[in-house]
Amino acid sequence: MIWDFFTFIRAATEFSATALLILLGCMGDAMNQGGEHKFLVTSVHYGLTVMVVMHVFGFVSGAHANPCISISCYCLGHIALEVMLMYVACQMAGAFAGYLLLLQLLPKEVVDKSKPGVCLVQPMHSLSTAQVVTIECLLTAVLVLGWCALWDVRNGRFLDSVTIRMGLLVVACHYAGVQLTGACMNPASTLVPAIFHGNPDAVLLQLTGQILAAVLVPFVWNNVYTPRYKPLEIPVYN
Amino acid sequence: MIWDFFTFIRAATEFSATALLILLGCMGDAMNQGGEHKFLVTSVHYGLTVMVVMHVFGFVSGAHANPCISISCYCLGHIALEVMLMYVACQMAGAFAGYLLLLQLLPKEVVDKSKPGVCLVQPMHSLSTAQVVTIECLLTAVLVLGWCALWDVRNGRFLDSVTIRMGLLVVACHYAGVQLTGACMNPASTLVPAIFHGNPDAVLLQLTGQILAAVLVPFVWNNVYTPRYKPLEIPVYN
Amino acid sequence: MIWDFFTFIRAATEFSATALLILLGCMGDAMNQGGEHKFLVTSVHYGLTVMVVMHVFGFVSGAHANPCISISCYCLGHIALEVMLMYVACQMAGAFAGYLLLLQLLPKEVVDKSKPGVCLVQPMHSLSTAQVVTIECLLTAVLVLGWCALWDVRNGRFLDSVTIRMGLLVVACHYAGVQLTGACMNPASTLVPAIFHGNPDAVLLQLTGQILAAVLVPFVWNNVYTPRYKPLEIPVYN
Amino acid sequence: MIWDFFTFIRAATEFSATALLILLGCMGDAMNQGGEHKFLVTSVHYGLTVMVVMHVFGFVSGAHANPCISISCYCLGHIALEVMLMYVACQMAGAFAGYLLLLQLLPKEVVDKSKPGVCLVQPMHSLSTAQVVTIECLLTAVLVLGWCALWDVRNGRFLDSVTIRMGLLVVACHYAGVQLTGACMNPASTLVPAIFHGNPDAVLLQLTGQILAAVLVPFVWNNVYTPRYKPLEIPVYN
Repeated sequence: MIWDFFTFIRAATEFSATALLILLGCMGDAMNQGGEHKFLVTSVHYGLTVMVVMHVFGFVSGAHANPCISISCYCLGHIALEVMLMYVACQMAGAFAGYLLLLQLLPKEVVDKSKPGVCLVQPMHSLSTAQVVTIECLLTAVLVLGWCALWDVRNGRFLDSVTIRMGLLVVACHYAGVQLTGACMNPASTLVPAIFHGNPDAVLLQLTGQILAAVLVPFVWNNVYTPRYKPLEIPVYN
Repeated sequence: MIWDFFTFIRAATEFSATALLILLGCMGDAMNQGGEHKFLVTSVHYGLTVMVVMHVFGFVSGAHANPCISISCYCLGHIALEVMLMYVACQMAGAFAGYLLLLQLLPKEVVDKSKPGVCLVQPMHSLSTAQVVTIECLLTAVLVLGWCALWDVRNGRFLDSVTIRMGLLVVACHYAGVQLTGACMNPASTLVPAIFHGNPDAVLLQLTGQILAAVLVPFVWNNVYTPRYKPLEIPVYN
Repeated sequence: MIWDFFTFIRAATEFSATALLILLGCMGDAMNQGGEHKFLVTSVHYGLTVMVVMHVFGFVSGAHANPCISISCYCLGHIALEVMLMYVACQMAGAFAGYLLLLQLLPKEVVDKSKPGVCLVQPMHSLSTAQVVTIECLLTAVLVLGWCALWDVRNGRFLDSVTIRMGLLVVACHYAGVQLTGACMNPASTLVPAIFHGNPDAVLLQLTGQILAAVLVPFVWNNVYTPRYKPLEIPVYN
Repeated sequence: MIWDFFTFIRAATEFSATALLILLGCMGDAMNQGGEHKFLVTSVHYGLTVMVVMHVFGFVSGAHANPCISISCYCLGHIALEVMLMYVACQMAGAFAGYLLLLQLLPKEVVDKSKPGVCLVQPMHSLSTAQVVTIECLLTAVLVLGWCALWDVRNGRFLDSVTIRMGLLVVACHYAGVQLTGACMNPASTLVPAIFHGNPDAVLLQLTGQILAAVLVPFVWNNVYTPRYKPLEIPVYN
C-alpha cells in the first residue's frame, strides 16, 4: 500500500463516514420518544442514516463505515489486507469521535433518559448464548449478502438506487432483530457505546456473530452463488 | 434441462431466497408488538423483506421466492417446465428450512405470544368463501402483474429501482388485504406455517386464489396488454 | 384516431389502471383501523397504490388513471383530443367497475364502519368555498407539475425511479390536504364514490379545483418553466 | 450575468420552488395531529416535500429552494456570485409568498392550534448556545454534504433516484434534530415564520449554524474528499 494523498482521502472518508453514522444514528435513537412503535422508528432512522452515509461518501471510499463490511470486502479480494486494516482502524476511531461529540451535544436530561445508555444494546434475557450469536450472525449475514450483491459485476448496471436499497435492507434486518440482540450488525457501533459505559464484555456475543458472518458469507457467495465470474487474479498494489 | 453447475446455483438460490424470505419476514412478524398500526408495520416489514431478497438474489436466479411467480414465469414462456418445477420444489424446501430455523431462534415466550401462530394467516370470519378466494386472487394478481411488467421488454431500461418498486407493491397489496385474507400472495409462506401447526386445510381458499391468479394473469397480460411484442418461439434447452 | 388494436390496448389499460387504483386504494382506506396517525396511513397507502398502477401499466398507456392528467397531457400537446376523451371515458368506467367490485368484496361490517362512506371525501366544515377550491387546485397542481416534469424532455434520462417519486409526491400532497378537502386530486376517485352514495353535488368544489389545475398548469409550465424546448408542431395521427 | 429569458426562468423557478416547499411542507406540519410519533410524521412529510420540489423543478434551476445550498454551490464554483445572490433573493421572496398564501388557506382553528406558530421552530430550553449552533451546523452540514455529493462528477451517473435520496436524507437529519433545534437546515423556512410572528431574533442561533455549514462544508469537500477532480478554471459568463 503506497501512502499517497488518495490513501489519506480514503482513510479520512471512512473516519468521517463512521463518525457520521454514529453521530446521526445515535442522535435519532436518543431523541426517540418511545411509545408503541418505537422499535420501528429506531430501525427506520438507522436505515436512513446508513443510506445518508452511503450517498455522501459512497463513491469516495465505498463508505463501508462497518468493520464487517471491510473484512468481507477483503475476503472477496476487492481490497488488500493493508487497506482493510486501515479501514477498520479509521472506522473504530471515527466511531469513538462521533460518540464523544454526540455526548457533548445532547442535553444531560436526554442522555440520562436513555436506558441502558445512548445506542447501547442488550440481548433479550430469555435468549440462550447460541441464539444470540446465531441471530446476530444471520442478520449481519443478510447485510453482508447485500454488499456482496452490490459489489458483484452482474449488478454493475444497477447502482443508482443501491444506497436506498441498502438503507431499506438495514431497516428490515434491524427491525426483525432489535428486540432480540440489538441487531447493530456493526462492530463499531456495538462496541464503542459499550466501552464508554465500561462494559465491553456485554456485547461479546453480538461481536462474535458479526465477525462470523463477515468471514463466512464471502466464502458462501464465491462458492454457491457465483458460477463463473471468478475475480481475476491481478496483483493489487494499493 | 441439463443438470450443470449453473442449474445447481439457481436451485440453491431459490432455496436460500425463500428461506430468507420466511426467516426474516416471519421474525419481524413475530417481534411486532401490536398496537394501533400493527398491520401497517407487518406490511412494511414484509415488503422490505421481499425487496431484500430480490436485491440479494435477483440477478442469480430471478429471486422469485414464490411458487406463483415461477408458475406465471413458465406460463409466459420465460422458463421451461422443468425449471419451473425445480424452482417450486426448492422454494417449498427453503420455506420449510427457514421456518424450522426460525422456531429454533425465537425464545419460547415470543412463539407462544403469536396468535394463532408465527406467520399463520386466518381469513376474516365474516367473509364468504367466494370473497376470500376473489380477494386473495386479486391481490396476488397485482403482484403477478408487477412481475409481468418487470419481465416485459418495454420495461427493460427501467430495472434499477425495480426491487424497491416490487417491495412497495407488496406493502400496498399486503396492507389492503391482511385483515381480510392474510394477503400472503405466496403459496410457500401460506402453506408452510399451516402445515407446521397441523392445519393445512385452513389455507385452502387462499391457495386456490393464489394459483388462479398465477395461471390467469399471464394469459390476460399476453392478450390484452401486449400488442406485438410476442415472445419469439425459440426452443429453450435449459 | 385510427381504431386499431393498439388503441384498444391503451383503452383497456386505462380502464384497468383506474379500476385497480380505486379497488386497491379504497380497500386500504376501508381497512384503515383509525387511531392517531390514520391520515398518514391513508396517504401512504394511496401513494403506494399510485406507484403500483404506474409500475404495472406505465409503459403501456402512460397509466394516467386520472382525468386531470389526461387533460393536462392533451393541453401540453402530448396526446390528441380523441385520445384524451377516450382516456377520460375509460377512466370513469374503470373507476365505476373498481368501486362496484370493491363493494362486493368487502364484508358488510367494514362497509358500514366507513364514515361517511368508503373512499368518500368531505371538506372540513370551517373552510370557505374559495379555500376548498384553492387548496384542491393547489394540491392537484403539484401532482400535474410532477407529471409535466415526468413528460419533459429534460427529464428523459431520469425515468427509472419516477414511479416511486410520483407515489411519494402523492403521499406528500394527500397528507397535507386530506383533512382539509380530502385531497383526492383525481376526479374519477372523487366523483364515483359520491355518485354511489347519491350525493355528487358534495364534491363539486373539489372537482372545480382539480379541473382548474389540469387546465392552468400546462399553460404555466409552457410559458414560465420551459425556455426553448417547445414541442415540435408535427401533426398527430393517432 | 446576462439578464435573458433563461435567467428569468431560473429566478421564477427558485421562487416557485421555495414557495412550494413552504406551502406544502408547512401545510403538512399544521395538519399534524400530534400524538406519539408526531416528530417522525413531521420529518417524513418535510423530507417528501423536499423530494417533490426537487423532482418538479430540479432540472430547471437545480431546485435549491434553500439559501444555504445556493451559497455552497457558489463556494464550490458551480454558480457565479450574481446568480447566487439572485437565487437567495428569489428564495426569500418565495418563502414569504408561500407562507402568506398558506395563512390565507388554513382555517383559523388550525392556525390557532399550532404552537408556537405554524412552522415556527424553538430550540430545546436545556441546550446551551454553543450546542444549538453546533447541532444546527452539523445537521445542515450533512444536507450540504448530500448536495456536494450530488454535484460531484464522480456521482454523475447516479442521478436517477437522487431526489428520493435527498428527501430521505432530510427525513433522517430532521428527525434527529427536530426536538433539539428545530432542524430546519434552511434559512428561508427558519426566518420567514419567525418574521411573521415578530420575533426573528429567536432563530439567530439556528441561522448562524446554517450559514456556518454552508461556508465550511464546500471548503472541507474540496480539500479532504476530492483527490484530483478539481473544477476546471473556466470563466463563467452567466
